[in-house]
Amino acid sequence: MNNKIMKLAINEAKKAYKKGEVPVGAVIAKNNKVVALAHNEVEKKKNCTLHAEIIAITKASKKVKNWRLNDCEMYVTLEPCAMCAAAIELSRISKIYFLIKKDKNIKINDKKYIYVEDNDFNKKILNLIQTFFKSKR
Amino acid sequence: MNNKIMKLAINEAKKAYKKGEVPVGAVIAKNNKVVALAHNEVEKKKNCTLHAEIIAITKASKKVKNWRLNDCEMYVTLEPCAMCAAAIELSRISKIYFLIKKDKNIKINDKKYIYVEDNDFNKKILNLIQTFFKSKR
Repeated sequence: MNNKIMKLAINEAKKAYKKGEVPVGAVIAKNNKVVALAHNEVEKKKNCTLHAEIIAITKASKKVKNWRLNDCEMYVTLEPCAMCAAAIELSRISKIYFLIKKDKNIKINDKKYIYVEDNDFNKKILNLIQTFFKSKR
Repeated sequence: MNNKIMKLAINEAKKAYKKGEVPVGAVIAKNNKVVALAHNEVEKKKNCTLHAEIIAITKASKKVKNWRLNDCEMYVTLEPCAMCAAAIELSRISKIYFLIKKDKNIKINDKKYIYVEDNDFNKKILNLIQTFFKSKR
């Protein structure tokens, strides 16, 4: 886990928050070099498929000119939903670091998924998500 | 089930086949009017997320200017994969007509999914898929 890259993912989540999107950020890296940065754009682009992870996969694929993202790692602030988890499988991304677990969908049996316990990171993102959903009530 | 619309989905699958893509076509319709036509573009666009269903959702959302596709129906030549099934859930599409079942992933418990038994349609698509995969061996 590269702290600097996870910080970039958190920064992407903040960008989403400021735009009124569910605050999720994702970064794809290869050999600790950033390949793609993305955040949730469902509302802005009016497209339910544009979760941070999907946009990151699209950007990374464009950059490496290949739909296969073997040897790439994803840093994402929230555990991926079913759509994104399936897209990650298709993309062949080899490792996924995430900060917040979702009850329904924990990838506990999938060794590719690594829950990052970093008090500062976890708190920041949890706070961002909770503030977002409170503001929507 | 509207036969004319399913024929358009089959036609999209043929377009994919001609381009060397896995031959899958999808159409989104509302009140029996076509909203979006799409076929698999994974290889052309080098993006593993660009299955026919995802592209159809993107196009339909643009057209109706809303990520919510309530009251829309999807016609798709192959039973959706896990990524597409989850995207369909998110999109709120209300009904999915499909021609070919996949063993692993049959949505038998989901009343939204309707397996279309039409000998002519089923044969055409099965033949297209089998020919495609034979040619790749």
